[in-house]
Amino acid sequence: MFLIRNRVTTSRLIFSIRKYSSLESPPLVELKNNSKFSVIKPVSNLRTSSTAEFVTPPNSKLQSLIWHKPLQNVLITKKPWTPTTREAMVDFITHIHDSYPEVNIIVQRDVADEIAQDFKTTLNHDPNRPHVLYTGTEEEITTRADLLVTLGGDGTILHGVSMFGNNQVPPVLAFSLGTLGFLLPFDFKEHKEIFEKVIRSRAKCLHRTRLQCHLMKNGSKDPIVTHAMNDIFLHRGSSPHLANLDIFIDGEYLTRTIADGVTLSTPTGSTAYSLSAGGSIVSPLVPSILLTPICPRSLSFRPLILPHSSHIKIRVGSKMNQNHRNNVVNLSIDGIPQQDLQIGDEIHVINEIGTIYVDGTQLPTATINNSNSQNDSKISKKIKKSGIYCVAKTENDWTRGINELLGFNSSFRFVRRNKDSE
Amino acid sequence: MFLIRNRVTTSRLIFSIRKYSSLESPPLVELKNNSKFSVIKPVSNLRTSSTAEFVTPPNSKLQSLIWHKPLQNVLITKKPWTPTTREAMVDFITHIHDSYPEVNIIVQRDVADEIAQDFKTTLNHDPNRPHVLYTGTEEEITTRADLLVTLGGDGTILHGVSMFGNNQVPPVLAFSLGTLGFLLPFDFKEHKEIFEKVIRSRAKCLHRTRLQCHLMKNGSKDPIVTHAMNDIFLHRGSSPHLANLDIFIDGEYLTRTIADGVTLSTPTGSTAYSLSAGGSIVSPLVPSILLTPICPRSLSFRPLILPHSSHIKIRVGSKMNQNHRNNVVNLSIDGIPQQDLQIGDEIHVINEIGTIYVDGTQLPTATINNSNSQNDSKISKKIKKSGIYCVAKTENDWTRGINELLGFNSSFRFVRRNKDSE
Amino acid sequence: MFLIRNRVTTSRLIFSIRKYSSLESPPLVELKNNSKFSVIKPVSNLRTSSTAEFVTPPNSKLQSLIWHKPLQNVLITKKPWTPTTREAMVDFITHIHDSYPEVNIIVQRDVADEIAQDFKTTLNHDPNRPHVLYTGTEEEITTRADLLVTLGGDGTILHGVSMFGNNQVPPVLAFSLGTLGFLLPFDFKEHKEIFEKVIRSRAKCLHRTRLQCHLMKNGSKDPIVTHAMNDIFLHRGSSPHLANLDIFIDGEYLTRTIADGVTLSTPTGSTAYSLSAGGSIVSPLVPSILLTPICPRSLSFRPLILPHSSHIKIRVGSKMNQNHRNNVVNLSIDGIPQQDLQIGDEIHVINEIGTIYVDGTQLPTATINNSNSQNDSKISKKIKKSGIYCVAKTENDWTRGINELLGFNSSFRFVRRNKDSE
Amino acid sequence: MFLIRNRVTTSRLIFSIRKYSSLESPPLVELKNNSKFSVIKPVSNLRTSSTAEFVTPPNSKLQSLIWHKPLQNVLITKKPWTPTTREAMVDFITHIHDSYPEVNIIVQRDVADEIAQDFKTTLNHDPNRPHVLYTGTEEEITTRADLLVTLGGDGTILHGVSMFGNNQVPPVLAFSLGTLGFLLPFDFKEHKEIFEKVIRSRAKCLHRTRLQCHLMKNGSKDPIVTHAMNDIFLHRGSSPHLANLDIFIDGEYLTRTIADGVTLSTPTGSTAYSLSAGGSIVSPLVPSILLTPICPRSLSFRPLILPHSSHIKIRVGSKMNQNHRNNVVNLSIDGIPQQDLQIGDEIHVINEIGTIYVDGTQLPTATINNSNSQNDSKISKKIKKSGIYCVAKTENDWTRGINELLGFNSSFRFVRRNKDSE
Repeated sequence: MFLIRNRVTTSRLIFSIRKYSSLESPPLVELKNNSKFSVIKPVSNLRTSSTAEFVTPPNSKLQSLIWHKPLQNVLITKKPWTPTTREAMVDFITHIHDSYPEVNIIVQRDVADEIAQDFKTTLNHDPNRPHVLYTGTEEEITTRADLLVTLGGDGTILHGVSMFGNNQVPPVLAFSLGTLGFLLPFDFKEHKEIFEKVIRSRAKCLHRTRLQCHLMKNGSKDPIVTHAMNDIFLHRGSSPHLANLDIFIDGEYLTRTIADGVTLSTPTGSTAYSLSAGGSIVSPLVPSILLTPICPRSLSFRPLILPHSSHIKIRVGSKMNQNHRNNVVNLSIDGIPQQDLQIGDEIHVINEIGTIYVDGTQLPTATINNSNSQNDSKISKKIKKSGIYCVAKTENDWTRGINELLGFNSSFRFVRRNKDSE
Repeated sequence: MFLIRNRVTTSRLIFSIRKYSSLESPPLVELKNNSKFSVIKPVSNLRTSSTAEFVTPPNSKLQSLIWHKPLQNVLITKKPWTPTTREAMVDFITHIHDSYPEVNIIVQRDVADEIAQDFKTTLNHDPNRPHVLYTGTEEEITTRADLLVTLGGDGTILHGVSMFGNNQVPPVLAFSLGTLGFLLPFDFKEHKEIFEKVIRSRAKCLHRTRLQCHLMKNGSKDPIVTHAMNDIFLHRGSSPHLANLDIFIDGEYLTRTIADGVTLSTPTGSTAYSLSAGGSIVSPLVPSILLTPICPRSLSFRPLILPHSSHIKIRVGSKMNQNHRNNVVNLSIDGIPQQDLQIGDEIHVINEIGTIYVDGTQLPTATINNSNSQNDSKISKKIKKSGIYCVAKTENDWTRGINELLGFNSSFRFVRRNKDSE
Repeated sequence: MFLIRNRVTTSRLIFSIRKYSSLESPPLVELKNNSKFSVIKPVSNLRTSSTAEFVTPPNSKLQSLIWHKPLQNVLITKKPWTPTTREAMVDFITHIHDSYPEVNIIVQRDVADEIAQDFKTTLNHDPNRPHVLYTGTEEEITTRADLLVTLGGDGTILHGVSMFGNNQVPPVLAFSLGTLGFLLPFDFKEHKEIFEKVIRSRAKCLHRTRLQCHLMKNGSKDPIVTHAMNDIFLHRGSSPHLANLDIFIDGEYLTRTIADGVTLSTPTGSTAYSLSAGGSIVSPLVPSILLTPICPRSLSFRPLILPHSSHIKIRVGSKMNQNHRNNVVNLSIDGIPQQDLQIGDEIHVINEIGTIYVDGTQLPTATINNSNSQNDSKISKKIKKSGIYCVAKTENDWTRGINELLGFNSSFRFVRRNKDSE
Repeated sequence: MFLIRNRVTTSRLIFSIRKYSSLESPPLVELKNNSKFSVIKPVSNLRTSSTAEFVTPPNSKLQSLIWHKPLQNVLITKKPWTPTTREAMVDFITHIHDSYPEVNIIVQRDVADEIAQDFKTTLNHDPNRPHVLYTGTEEEITTRADLLVTLGGDGTILHGVSMFGNNQVPPVLAFSLGTLGFLLPFDFKEHKEIFEKVIRSRAKCLHRTRLQCHLMKNGSKDPIVTHAMNDIFLHRGSSPHLANLDIFIDGEYLTRTIADGVTLSTPTGSTAYSLSAGGSIVSPLVPSILLTPICPRSLSFRPLILPHSSHIKIRVGSKMNQNHRNNVVNLSIDGIPQQDLQIGDEIHVINEIGTIYVDGTQLPTATINNSNSQNDSKISKKIKKSGIYCVAKTENDWTRGINELLGFNSSFRFVRRNKDSE
């Protein structure tokens, strides 16, 4: 409960474009839609999410995405404030409505407001069939979506996924509009072909796991649990003092780092902050957790790649002889600022697919199940289907993406040894 | 066949202490052992290796080592030329003979020569019971050993393991004599306690996988297969020209690197050459292959962590406008020089625990099974038990080892910001 | 003017121990000194600073420190809150008073308060000669000091030097109490021998230059000038957005970096933040300015070593399509937070020993001379004697310091190649 | 064929055993030049080199290149075996002959052979004025050249400069044909304008210093001296053993590095091997020597930037308990392999512009003056004009070059934090 409120607040802070938060929940009739080509309806009218099944074919690194019940409810999110994505969204919705009339389109409220006027025609030009957009609170939306479509860059994917908080995320179909992305989206030009594949159960997905961050404020018995697709980092932020962080792995003390901070990343996030801090690039197929120090006051602390089953505890340590009133450490999850940590506060980070708990190393107090009441009631089923399934182009998308990234090393073609450039 | 000869030759080259290679195989009677406290017998008298079983207990990162048939044949190798290891070896053998009379001690021929004179007494001072050392060719030795004991550092472990070539390696019990090691050996002072645990099926093992290197000389249909516990690297060596290496992953072109070379490492080898070249430290429990460029002529080529199931091909590329007669690339496996590569030659590297072959990406010609006739006939069974099982101290040996390594970051305690050192 | 106030405020914030700021300037009679062994007198009674001369002998990397007028006023600062430095300070003052009665000891007000009670005897046990401590406002203190003695670590040196703001700093004699320091202090045990050398004009100094930071708030014509002994850095701090920084060298556009930040360091500061961010270690004898990116979102931005005569401008850049109300960048100089920068704000960084201005690349508006009225009236003379002269042990102090730092590489002694550890 | 001869010549040049590359030295009449448009004449007919003067204007980072005696003899070298440079060379010579009839063109013998047939016309189409190419031994050539023009890449510049061995190098005017270069050549399209500037004393030069490597074979009193424009490196090459290198700075022990090797670079060479090994990018205006370890077996050995006046000694160290017969270390200077080093051998590296010798740290035996007899008799005058003067485009060439290099960081534009890519 607390968590959901927290997320929404944070999102508003960052996007500052969302007019209705899920808690105020104004009646939909308040939405003034003057368009004669579209109508906005409450998403609560739709059935709840239908879960896809994922099957691993022999000799494949990907999973086939199979719909047992037909795909019905498609949630579309987009990068805010850019005319090109707004236009692409209207094109995409028009195409879906025209070609797959059984499919319902769900959007966030502010997006509904934003694009409702943009439709220039009704479905198949039939004046009695305006475009229908379903919307509601974030909770209503996320519990109805069978598929998440994102239009934008990697940031749009991260944001779309973060709407689901600690709940199961439906398969993700990501489109970019021009820029490359580490999360390997499709070019929007391919949207018709790939959506047809998805709805016909002919698409394949790359599985990406998330991390769980359990924040334990000093003395609290009630951890705040948040999921991360990319990374969780602790940083001294604007403090003039370096962070003193004591790191434990599976209950064993690893080291104290005196540093700007430390980041814990999924393989997906290995190309995000960890890379900037000097980390390696890790394939999403390598089950692991990356621990990368950020500007450590040490010459010898190298980035570590830990088993996915690790339980990593980081505690904000004290320093002798100092006045620590201002000595807070910032916590950030997938780029969204969280509560600050004080001396003695801890985070516990595990992979959502499970941890090997050797004697006495369990998460200290609560489990994820009982810390989040209502919304997370589906968590017990999550073990079967944790992680994010992202629709993929080919078996080798990742290698191609790295090739594009490394391709730029071609630029440093200058001389190095006498003979090499002759 | 070639491979075996190659290894022995190389080993002799490097150690230059082995008098009898397995191919010349002089009769054992030639060994002049004047000691009245020891006798040397042919290892071929012993039964062939008995295989241990490994069971994973719940909530454990390690495997229990269970002997179904009693442990009988113990192969002991040691670091050459150091009096302390020689002394330790005699102590260890005396202890085993006195306490476990059913256990046979196997050593390499040169070691038998070296230590036969060192025994100062017979078993339990019974004049009729001299210390028996079994020896023979490397092939005879390795096919009899139930357990491999090493006395020395990480290099001794690597060398001991490399004697087994492409065959299954028995469980490894490693002792160090003073120095720390990344392969986490026991202190020799603990040898009695830990051997008792091992022989009583109460020890636990850490599983380490190896890489397979398939060297394809230009035009050849017959790959040379070698196993690596640490790493496989290509390097320009003494050539004034940088190596031009085309890298493919699962049949997809990744990049051309123009560099001193490139290293492919197991997680075990992440603290060897890869670390010196800027790689991350990877837990042996993370199934993966590390690809680390060595001094690349590029600012943007970062170390990569690839799935353990990857099939990595590296081909020596050509350069235009150049006379390449001298342009060879050195291949080195676990630090042992192999045949040089010419333009067009390839290595294919996979993890011994298996590869996902997507369409058309199989190893080009031969499989490992038919490329090595006699010795590798056991390879078909290998899938069940590939990798090296190393006797471990605790669940958290690795974290403790890294702690010791990183512990040295504590040394850089000097000032960084105004207040931090006040 | 603003600058001076700012420094004092900041210092108070950080040390949080200073009771009287130079602006409030309470009368000295308010100081309650109940000790019968010491008296506190106004520093304004003393003559103003006498300047030492520095002569470079042939075949020396250091300068001889020559007093033409005798050394008279010694300012001593110390690390706050540690009993050992407090005790050392009393020992040092007692020794000076006993052995060099012509020398006056100056301390900061809070230090006078702190240690006045600590003297257990008068000078040479003569009851009529209590220990005299001179104190006053920071401005009064700094304009009287002939020599700066620091007791503590590198942070104490930085803080002592920062008291002088943009004015000439007297020679620095630094003592450490146990810990090593990159600024190469003397061990306190040597204090008698080295002080004798200093007062007799037999000491040698290492010259360290400082950087000048000219902060130009958007639209302002009046730059705020601050000196840095270690480094000047811009950092996004707690902002969730990366900093967009446009960098110009001598008027030429270099690059835009999208990063956590960027640091500009003196060679002295090369072992401070720059080292943590991946920079090289630079000898203080190499006239240069280090530009080191902090966690850049780029694989190819390497640390740069620029000529000491460079004029480096960094401007906070804008990003399209974003709401930037919160998008500030933190500025920090020698670890002390300064005013935040907004979009369009600039810093101009030069070395205090001078810049080569090619056409049209001068500092945009004011010069350092007229931007700081009163206090900086001595700046015109500064060109002759800019930089900090630190009393040195030997010609090779720096190499020895690095040796101690690198000495810790001895620790990574584990195996790397087969043979190396055998 | 050419290449082989070229390499041998170069090697001989460097080993200072070349008195006359004219040992083979066929009489010039033997050259079969069937062209009716060109003639080849002996370079020994020309006067010896006239030295340019360099004046530093106020507010400039460059030196003006002033000819007191008119520029007369132009040596042109080119990248071998590429038709485009061959064509460019003929164009350039034709232009010089047509426009500056007083200028003599000098080329290497093999180049004379190669291009003599390529002239399609005589000077200004006057049948009595064939194109004259002067050539001779390398010694004859280098002692006549007033200006060195290079057509190719950075490698061509390095090679052209290395022809002069330890002697003064004339000003260098470098042209590239398409590729960028760290040594900042002109585009060949500008050749007419820039040559006019050079001959009219209106060009400016960037000064680049060289390193001197003094190789002291064990026990020898006679060092072999070689100059390096980029770098000097020691590397284990194809040895399976890491190099053990003891490093001393100004007679003080710095550290032992156990590594692939170590490189010592000029600022010019900071973008060559040092950059690949992790070094910083250093402006050629920073007087310094870079010491960069190559794949050290240590986590804490960082690249060092030392004063230009440093005297760096590196001695090949021994290892205990090992058979070192094969343990050689390769020495390479500007990419050209030199003699191998054995245990106990040393190199001493200094900057050609001079060293501060503190007590007892001089170069051990011989000085550069008497170690190279005849050819180096000009060395005593060299102090005034050591280093390489490279004709420059603008004051900010270097910044622009780095901008182009770093420009490629623009490519890594993918998401890093949630909002940054939205």
